[in-house]
Amino acid sequence: MTTSLTPPGRTLGIVGGGQLGRMLAEAASPLGVEVLVLDPTPDCPASAVARDQLVGDFDDPETVRKLAELADALTFEIELADPDAMGRVAAEAGVPVHPSPETLRTIQDKLVQNEWLSDAGIPVPPFQRVDDRADLDAAISEFGYPVMVKARRGGYDGRGNFLVEDEADAADVLAAAPGDVLVEQVVEFDRELSVIGVKGDGERATYPAGENVHEAEILQETVVPARTTERVRERAQAVAGDVLDLMEGRGVYGIELFEADGEILVNEIAPRPHNSGHYTIEGAYVSQFEQHVRAIAGWPLGPTALRDPTVTSNLLGDVESPRHVEPGGLEGVFETPGAALHWYGKREVRPLRKMGHVTVVPTAGEGRETLLRRARELTGGVTYA
Amino acid sequence: MTTSLTPPGRTLGIVGGGQLGRMLAEAASPLGVEVLVLDPTPDCPASAVARDQLVGDFDDPETVRKLAELADALTFEIELADPDAMGRVAAEAGVPVHPSPETLRTIQDKLVQNEWLSDAGIPVPPFQRVDDRADLDAAISEFGYPVMVKARRGGYDGRGNFLVEDEADAADVLAAAPGDVLVEQVVEFDRELSVIGVKGDGERATYPAGENVHEAEILQETVVPARTTERVRERAQAVAGDVLDLMEGRGVYGIELFEADGEILVNEIAPRPHNSGHYTIEGAYVSQFEQHVRAIAGWPLGPTALRDPTVTSNLLGDVESPRHVEPGGLEGVFETPGAALHWYGKREVRPLRKMGHVTVVPTAGEGRETLLRRARELTGGVTYA
Repeated sequence: MTTSLTPPGRTLGIVGGGQLGRMLAEAASPLGVEVLVLDPTPDCPASAVARDQLVGDFDDPETVRKLAELADALTFEIELADPDAMGRVAAEAGVPVHPSPETLRTIQDKLVQNEWLSDAGIPVPPFQRVDDRADLDAAISEFGYPVMVKARRGGYDGRGNFLVEDEADAADVLAAAPGDVLVEQVVEFDRELSVIGVKGDGERATYPAGENVHEAEILQETVVPARTTERVRERAQAVAGDVLDLMEGRGVYGIELFEADGEILVNEIAPRPHNSGHYTIEGAYVSQFEQHVRAIAGWPLGPTALRDPTVTSNLLGDVESPRHVEPGGLEGVFETPGAALHWYGKREVRPLRKMGHVTVVPTAGEGRETLLRRARELTGGVTYA
Repeated sequence: MTTSLTPPGRTLGIVGGGQLGRMLAEAASPLGVEVLVLDPTPDCPASAVARDQLVGDFDDPETVRKLAELADALTFEIELADPDAMGRVAAEAGVPVHPSPETLRTIQDKLVQNEWLSDAGIPVPPFQRVDDRADLDAAISEFGYPVMVKARRGGYDGRGNFLVEDEADAADVLAAAPGDVLVEQVVEFDRELSVIGVKGDGERATYPAGENVHEAEILQETVVPARTTERVRERAQAVAGDVLDLMEGRGVYGIELFEADGEILVNEIAPRPHNSGHYTIEGAYVSQFEQHVRAIAGWPLGPTALRDPTVTSNLLGDVESPRHVEPGGLEGVFETPGAALHWYGKREVRPLRKMGHVTVVPTAGEGRETLLRRARELTGGVTYA
């Protein structure tokens, strides 16, 4: 076993200090692992529970170098991390980066990601590279309307996606979309599923498939296990396992999938702990955040079995413009048995910004529908300003 | 409801930065509460997950004042905290202290504590104040040998306790014991039980009774629920509830009890989260650490029901002299389903020092005996140097 971190006082450097970094630091502490974060925003969410924060841009080589020199291993919690800078300075400082910068580079380009999956025989929605209007027209004539034009880089939470429903949309989209794009057939899916996977040192594991409930293209709730058939859930886990086998480097991956007519297609991969995996903190025996630290350290992975059916609901800023956050309505969460609050400590609330989440587990055998209703009520009662 | 802390960025100042402070900081983070700790040892266990550490003695008024000025509320995780200094500077800085310094002052003196409990009708082992040899002889003739002579202040984990079995011991003990003492009848108890209680804003709650298994007077394991009758467990919770009613100020209390012939006697009270309550992190829906933060903030308390039967086993330094810690044998903990590691990040291992703990919950309906055997095996496999 290759152990790159041993307690006490060994340090994990994280590029990015948002809520994922914060929950990584919360999970690292019981393992005796300390965390340093690099983030451009002073007092970033993770800074309160990190040993220290280096303030700098994600792609600033000098700050990344400083992080590498202070840490025993590097990881990232944001895809905006610069794989070239991380790979170079980590090699110079002699510390490993997990997952590998190569994996991050591949995943950052949605076209390369799709090609890579497709070449490996992993099912993805039909897609085409688009360099010009002729490419787009060719794809539309093959797929038929509607199609989705996607930015190859920088899109997340539905941003960078453009739905093309007719010829007028097609005429406008290439001017509207920033940078290089690809086009995908719009899959009529029954459900969006999500599997959290983890690659350790010579082992891999997947959590049971969850179901992502979106509103306005933003992930609102995750229901685990997904409300579909056992066969579909198993197929989702199997496809996610195939995805993990393709990945280079240890760590947690969030794998979003479409369920369409009982078949599974891979929609998107995040090479890091994922919003749809927050349920693992209360819902599983070992959380996605602890698994990520274990994987990076080369320690044995933990079980990925569910402890109970679980629902997580996101706390999204419902303000119309950014302002100082002044939360209210949290009493409901505190008073509800089986409900847990995760507040990310952001200084400012913005429209639809992820401010926290609420997880609900059963305390008296409640089923998923009850948990989902309860989670919705609780998050609906929270105010931000 | 009096809310003294609201997220985000509100700050809890803790006097003491050991493992209790560390686990408080881990639990405060998901609630959006930041932690500052005061501790004389640089890089104390809590410092890695605290926003910051003030380095200073627990009773240094200037450092306590600085803590009070930076925090929205004060608490302590060590009985060595100075109640007078905390009360005075907190009043000057206009921040509340929970539990009240008065409670800490009472509990710091084992004689005053016993008198206070006894006066309130709460059952305690028979005891006498001892000022001189005549007092001791009078107590011995009343209680009979053996008796336990206890330091009134500063004793913990059996330190400061002197077993007096005969006249020769009696002749020596007053010279050997530091400072003022009291004498207690040695109760032939069947079991030591422990109840974690919490006082919130106008409410109180108690966790189910656990059973403390000692070796060499050091708490080795806690088994929850205690392996006794339902009636005894309920009586223990009821007595602990009576103790809580006596306490002033919000927060968590660790209440150690003797079970003797089916009766319950109060042995000791700690006005803070307690080693015997670590099982609540995995074993209950809301941990003792989260309850402490909620109580201080004036937020509603959470349920104290068990999620599963649980065993916690302490990781105690097995070295003969202090040295740099270099842990080994943690793989067993990582590889065992339902086992969780809590490593406190202490820089140095010392004989019997608490270096961490392991908690085991069932993943396939295992009972307490299996969990206890598993926890012992796992902690027995860990090496420190």
